[in-house]
Amino acid sequence: MLPDTQVEFVDRGFGKNFVRLLHVKREGTWNRIKEIEVSTKLTLSSVKDFLHGDNSDIIATDSQKNTVYILAKKHGVSCIEEFGMILAAHFLKQYSHVTKADIYIEEKPWNRIQMDGMEHAHAFIENGDAIRFCHVLQNRNDPPTIKAGLRDMKIMKTTRSAFANFISDEYRSLPDMNDRIFCTMVYADWDYSDFSGLDFDGAWTKVKETILEVFAGPPSSGIFSPSVQKTLYDTQKLAMARIPQFSYEIKETLEKKKTHQKLIWLLVTLMMMIDVLRPLLCINGTSKAEDNKTVRWPSPFDYDLQTQRTLIRSKQHAAFGCQGSISRREAPSEMTVRLMRR
Amino acid sequence: MLPDTQVEFVDRGFGKNFVRLLHVKREGTWNRIKEIEVSTKLTLSSVKDFLHGDNSDIIATDSQKNTVYILAKKHGVSCIEEFGMILAAHFLKQYSHVTKADIYIEEKPWNRIQMDGMEHAHAFIENGDAIRFCHVLQNRNDPPTIKAGLRDMKIMKTTRSAFANFISDEYRSLPDMNDRIFCTMVYADWDYSDFSGLDFDGAWTKVKETILEVFAGPPSSGIFSPSVQKTLYDTQKLAMARIPQFSYEIKETLEKKKTHQKLIWLLVTLMMMIDVLRPLLCINGTSKAEDNKTVRWPSPFDYDLQTQRTLIRSKQHAAFGCQGSISRREAPSEMTVRLMRR
Amino acid sequence: MLPDTQVEFVDRGFGKNFVRLLHVKREGTWNRIKEIEVSTKLTLSSVKDFLHGDNSDIIATDSQKNTVYILAKKHGVSCIEEFGMILAAHFLKQYSHVTKADIYIEEKPWNRIQMDGMEHAHAFIENGDAIRFCHVLQNRNDPPTIKAGLRDMKIMKTTRSAFANFISDEYRSLPDMNDRIFCTMVYADWDYSDFSGLDFDGAWTKVKETILEVFAGPPSSGIFSPSVQKTLYDTQKLAMARIPQFSYEIKETLEKKKTHQKLIWLLVTLMMMIDVLRPLLCINGTSKAEDNKTVRWPSPFDYDLQTQRTLIRSKQHAAFGCQGSISRREAPSEMTVRLMRR
Amino acid sequence: MLPDTQVEFVDRGFGKNFVRLLHVKREGTWNRIKEIEVSTKLTLSSVKDFLHGDNSDIIATDSQKNTVYILAKKHGVSCIEEFGMILAAHFLKQYSHVTKADIYIEEKPWNRIQMDGMEHAHAFIENGDAIRFCHVLQNRNDPPTIKAGLRDMKIMKTTRSAFANFISDEYRSLPDMNDRIFCTMVYADWDYSDFSGLDFDGAWTKVKETILEVFAGPPSSGIFSPSVQKTLYDTQKLAMARIPQFSYEIKETLEKKKTHQKLIWLLVTLMMMIDVLRPLLCINGTSKAEDNKTVRWPSPFDYDLQTQRTLIRSKQHAAFGCQGSISRREAPSEMTVRLMRR
Repeated sequence: MLPDTQVEFVDRGFGKNFVRLLHVKREGTWNRIKEIEVSTKLTLSSVKDFLHGDNSDIIATDSQKNTVYILAKKHGVSCIEEFGMILAAHFLKQYSHVTKADIYIEEKPWNRIQMDGMEHAHAFIENGDAIRFCHVLQNRNDPPTIKAGLRDMKIMKTTRSAFANFISDEYRSLPDMNDRIFCTMVYADWDYSDFSGLDFDGAWTKVKETILEVFAGPPSSGIFSPSVQKTLYDTQKLAMARIPQFSYEIKETLEKKKTHQKLIWLLVTLMMMIDVLRPLLCINGTSKAEDNKTVRWPSPFDYDLQTQRTLIRSKQHAAFGCQGSISRREAPSEMTVRLMRR
Repeated sequence: MLPDTQVEFVDRGFGKNFVRLLHVKREGTWNRIKEIEVSTKLTLSSVKDFLHGDNSDIIATDSQKNTVYILAKKHGVSCIEEFGMILAAHFLKQYSHVTKADIYIEEKPWNRIQMDGMEHAHAFIENGDAIRFCHVLQNRNDPPTIKAGLRDMKIMKTTRSAFANFISDEYRSLPDMNDRIFCTMVYADWDYSDFSGLDFDGAWTKVKETILEVFAGPPSSGIFSPSVQKTLYDTQKLAMARIPQFSYEIKETLEKKKTHQKLIWLLVTLMMMIDVLRPLLCINGTSKAEDNKTVRWPSPFDYDLQTQRTLIRSKQHAAFGCQGSISRREAPSEMTVRLMRR
Repeated sequence: MLPDTQVEFVDRGFGKNFVRLLHVKREGTWNRIKEIEVSTKLTLSSVKDFLHGDNSDIIATDSQKNTVYILAKKHGVSCIEEFGMILAAHFLKQYSHVTKADIYIEEKPWNRIQMDGMEHAHAFIENGDAIRFCHVLQNRNDPPTIKAGLRDMKIMKTTRSAFANFISDEYRSLPDMNDRIFCTMVYADWDYSDFSGLDFDGAWTKVKETILEVFAGPPSSGIFSPSVQKTLYDTQKLAMARIPQFSYEIKETLEKKKTHQKLIWLLVTLMMMIDVLRPLLCINGTSKAEDNKTVRWPSPFDYDLQTQRTLIRSKQHAAFGCQGSISRREAPSEMTVRLMRR
Repeated sequence: MLPDTQVEFVDRGFGKNFVRLLHVKREGTWNRIKEIEVSTKLTLSSVKDFLHGDNSDIIATDSQKNTVYILAKKHGVSCIEEFGMILAAHFLKQYSHVTKADIYIEEKPWNRIQMDGMEHAHAFIENGDAIRFCHVLQNRNDPPTIKAGLRDMKIMKTTRSAFANFISDEYRSLPDMNDRIFCTMVYADWDYSDFSGLDFDGAWTKVKETILEVFAGPPSSGIFSPSVQKTLYDTQKLAMARIPQFSYEIKETLEKKKTHQKLIWLLVTLMMMIDVLRPLLCINGTSKAEDNKTVRWPSPFDYDLQTQRTLIRSKQHAAFGCQGSISRREAPSEMTVRLMRR
C-alpha cells in the first residue's frame, strides 16, 4: 500500500442520491403538489476520514437526506432551481468545512385530473411528456452555477424528414431515405449565466416549446428536415435567440473556471423507424431492393430485411418509452452539438 | 428419463413475444399512427416435435412475427381488439393443425403535438396517462374471448382519504390515518361477454373515466374514501352499471369453459404516502429547524420514523413512474376484487 | 351504480408485495445470510370493508409486512419453502376470519467471497446464475400447496443445435439452420404433491442440474438439439424420473381443486442468435443469399439482413442479462410445455 | 433565430450506442465466446451538415454499426481495450475528416458450464459478479487514451464495519453504529498512462481482487472498517501500489490536455443495511410479539422505525441486484475519491 505521503487528492465527495419527497401546499380543499427527487453531494476541506478513519467532520448522508426534508418544510418547494439554491447555500452556511455543495433535482410530471373541463381541487394524474431537472453547483465564496434541462421527451413525425447523400462506401448498408419517419427521444440541458430575477418555469417552458416548434413545423404543412443535425442546430439558434440568459461554463481546471457567455447545449438522441407499410408497398416496384437490382421481390430475405429493420427500430422506439436508464439496453443513434454565442 | 408412454401433455404452446410495429395511415400530410406491441402463441394438434424432434408442423416464431407485419399491412390497425381477432382467426384458418391462438396486444399512448391550440397533421408526442391492452384467445371451433384493460395509470388525491379502525394487535405499527394521501397505480381488466358491434374504444374510455370519477369525486369537493377496498368496490359497481357487455369466463377445465354473465374484474395496486409536511408539523408547531436543542419528543427517531416513512413511500411512488416491470422492485400494497353480476 | 344485492364476489384479496429482508445468523465471526423478498396476500371471510367501508376486520398490509419481520426473527429463514409455510400457517392461525393465505418468496443469490481458495467467514458477493422462488398457497382446513421454481438462468450453446424443416410458406423468412447458436433464458416451476420430509434445497438443485445437463450434454462432445421443443421435453422427462415428488394441481373452479399426480411444468423462453462471423463468411459462397439465387453477395441488403439479425438477436440476448422485467421490452420467442405422469 | 455568424461550435459528435455482438471462435467442438456491447461516436472537421443540411461528410450511424461487425469479423475480439483501439484507429484512418473517435465497450460475464468439475467445450452460463468495461478516446495525431473499469459488483460484509462519531446536530437521526452491515455496489474506473505491452485482462483482475481483499480482509478474521471513506482510500493506495500503469488525464480545455501521472479513480456507492434481527432484539430483550401493551419506549413507532429502516435499506439493496439503471430509482449513499500519486 502506498504511504499517505505519496498520494494527493484530486477529487472527493459524498452524499445521498435520489431522495424523493412530495410537497403538498393546502389552501382548504384546493391543494398544490410538487414531487421531486433530490441528490446531494458535499466536499469537505478536511481528509482525516480518509487518512485516519476519523469521522468527526462527516455530515452523514442520512443527515443530508433529513436536511432535504427539513428545508422543504421550512421553505416549501416552489421551483426546483430555487430549492436547489436554498439547499446548496444551506450546506455551505451550516458547515464551515464544506467547500463544495452539489445538488441535482428532478420533478415528476403531475397534473390535475380534469372532470368535464374543470380542474380537480386535490386529485392528480401523472401524464407529463418530459422530465424536468436542474443541477445547482456551488463552491464556497462563489455564486452558484445553474444548469436546467429536460429528458425523456419522445416525439415523432411521420413525414417531412429525410436522410440522404451521406458517405457511401463498403461499410454502408442504409439506403437514401427521402421521406422517412423521424422519431426521437429528446434530452436537452443548458446553463444560465445570469438568473437574477429569471422566471425559471417560463424559461424551461420556452425551451420545450422551441424544440417542438422546430421539430414539427406549422401544424398543417410541417417543416422539412434534411438531417437531425440540421434540426438540432436550428433548434439551438432559435432557443438562444429567445432566451438571453443561456450560458455555459467550461471547466478549465478542477478549481478555476472561465465563462464563455451565451451558450446552449442540446443533445438529441435520434432513432429512425421505417413505416411498417413500406416493406410491402415495395411489391409495387418502388422497392429499394429493386433500386439495387434485386429483381425477385419480395424474397424472404429482402422482405425480412425490411421487417427486421422495422422490428429492430420499433424496438429501439419502444425503449424510449421507458426511463432513459432502460434505453441504455437499446442501440439508438445519438447526435450532440453545443453552440456558443460569439 | 421417463418413456414417452408414461407422460401425457397438459399444456403446450410457442410464439413470439412483444413484436412492435408502427402503423401509419397517410391522408396527404394528415397522418394517423398506431404503435402496438403484439405477442402471439399457438398450440398445435400434433406433438411429434416433442416426441421425435420432427419440426414439420412448426410455424416458426419468426414466421408468426412476419404474419403480424403482413396482416397489419393488409388490414391496417384500427382498434387493438379487432386486430387481435384478425390475427387469431388467421392462424386458425391458415393452419388446420393449430388448435388454439393466443394474442396479447398493447398500444402506446401517442397524441398529436398541439401548436397554439391546433393539432399537428403529422407530428406526435408520447404523453398518455395509461397503457391500453387486450388479450384475445380463440380455440378452434369456438368464438374468441376478449379481455380488455389498462395499466400504469398513476393517480393521487391529497385529502378525502382515510384508513382507520383496522385490526390493532402486536403486529400493527401503522397509526390510524383520518386524512391521508392516497396515491395508487391502477391496473384494471375485464372480459366482454358480447362484443357484436361493440365500440371497443368507447368502452375502454368509459371504464377509465369511471375509475377517475369514483377516485376523485366532484372537482371542487372531492369524495371521501374510508379505504381502498370501498373505493374499488364502488368503482366496479358503477362500471358494471354503465357497461352491460362486461362478463367473465371462469376456466373450468383446460378445454371446457362455462360463462358467468356480467362480471368485471378490477385490480388496484395501492400505495399510501404521508405528507412530507406532517413529520415536522406534528411538533406542536415548532419545526426541528426552529428548535436545535430538542432531545425530547420528537426524538430523532420519531422524526426519522416519519421521514423514513415519507421516503420509503415516495420511493414506492417513484417506482410507479416506471414500467410496471420496475415497480416489481418496490413494495406496494395490493388490493384485488372481482365482482360478478347476479 | 349497481345495488349490492345485484353483485356477487368472485375473488378478493389484499397484501404487501416484495417485502425484502436480510436474515443474518451469527456464529461468532462465521455468519450465514439469507436475503429474501416476500409477498403476502390474504382473503377474508367478511366483505363489510367493501360494502360498508368497515375496516374492523382488515389486517393492514403494513401489519402483514411487520409479521414477515417478526416471524423471520422468531423462526429464522432456513429454506424459503419452509418459511412460506410458516407464514401461511401463522396468518390462518392468528386470524380466524382469514380464509386463504398466499405467500410468494424469492431468494437472492449471495455466495461467500473466496480468498485464495478459502471461503470468507462474513464477506459475501452476489453472483448467482439463477433466481430461486417458491409459492405457498393455503386455504383454511386444507394443507398448503407448494410450487417451486427458478428464473433468469441464461445459458448458451454455440453448436450442436439446429432448427430446420419447419413449415415453409409465404410467411416464412427464416432459413433452415443446421448449426445455430442456441441461447435462452430459462424459467421453470413445478409443484410438489408430497413434501413430508422433502429436502427442498436438494430438489431445487437437482432440477437446475437436470436442465443444464440436458441442454449442454457431455462436456467434450455436447448433445444435439433438433429444436427447443425436443430439448424441453427431454428435460422434463429426466427431471420427473429423478424427482418423484413433482405434482401439479389443476384449478377446476375458483374454490375446488383436483390433483393430477406426478406432473412437472417447465417453461423455457428461447432466443436464437446468429454467429456474428456468419454474415461475412457468406462471402465464401456458402451464403443463404446464394442458396436463394441472389448472386451479388454481399449486397448491402443481404449483408444488412445478417447484421440486423445478429444485432436484433444479440439485443434480445442483452435483455436477458437484465431482470425479467426488462426483457419484457424485448421480443424473445417462447416455448411452453407441461407434462403429467400417467 | 441567430445568424450562423453569431454562433460558434463548442462540441459535436454522432454515433451508434450499445451495438451488441457475440464473437465465437471455433476450435472444433471447443468454442470460445465473447459478448460485447459497443458504442461509437465520431467528430468531423466539417460542419456543413449543421449549417447547410449537406450530409456528404456524414458516416451514418448505421454504417458505424456495420463497421463494428466487420472489424469484429476481421480482427476478432480478444480483449475489449484492444478492440476499442482497433475501432478508434480504423475510423481515423478510414475517414480523413474524422478528428475524434470515441469508443465505449462493455463485456458480458459468460462462463463455461461445469459438469462434474469439467469445463464444457461449447456450453456457457452467465453468472459473473461484475461488468467489465473500457473507454477508448483518440484524437487525430494523438495516441489513444484508455480508461478501464468494472461496475455492478455487489458485496456485503455482516460484521467488522462501523460508522460512529460523525457530526451530531439537529439534522442527524442516525445513531452511532459500531457493528453494522456494510453492503455496497462497487463502481471503479481508472486510466492507463502507459499500456505498451500491458496485460489488460491481468490488470483488470488485479484491481477487482484488490477491492475484494481490502473490503473483506482475511477469510477467518476479516478486517475492521471505520467508514467507507477509509476502506475506499486504502483500496486505492493498494491498487496503485500493485499496478504502476494507472494514470489520469485532467481535461484542461476541450482540445488541450495535460497529464498528471499515476492516478486512479474509484467510486463506491455505499448502502447500509440493518440486521433484521436487530429491531426486535433492541427492545431490551422483550420483543413486540411478547409485549402487546407497551406504550412507553419502544413505542410501535420505534419498532416501525427499525423495520422501516430495514425495509428501506434492503430495498436499496435489492436495487443493486439490478442494472445500474434501475438503482437510479433508489436512494443509495455515494462516496467518491480520486487519488493521484505524487
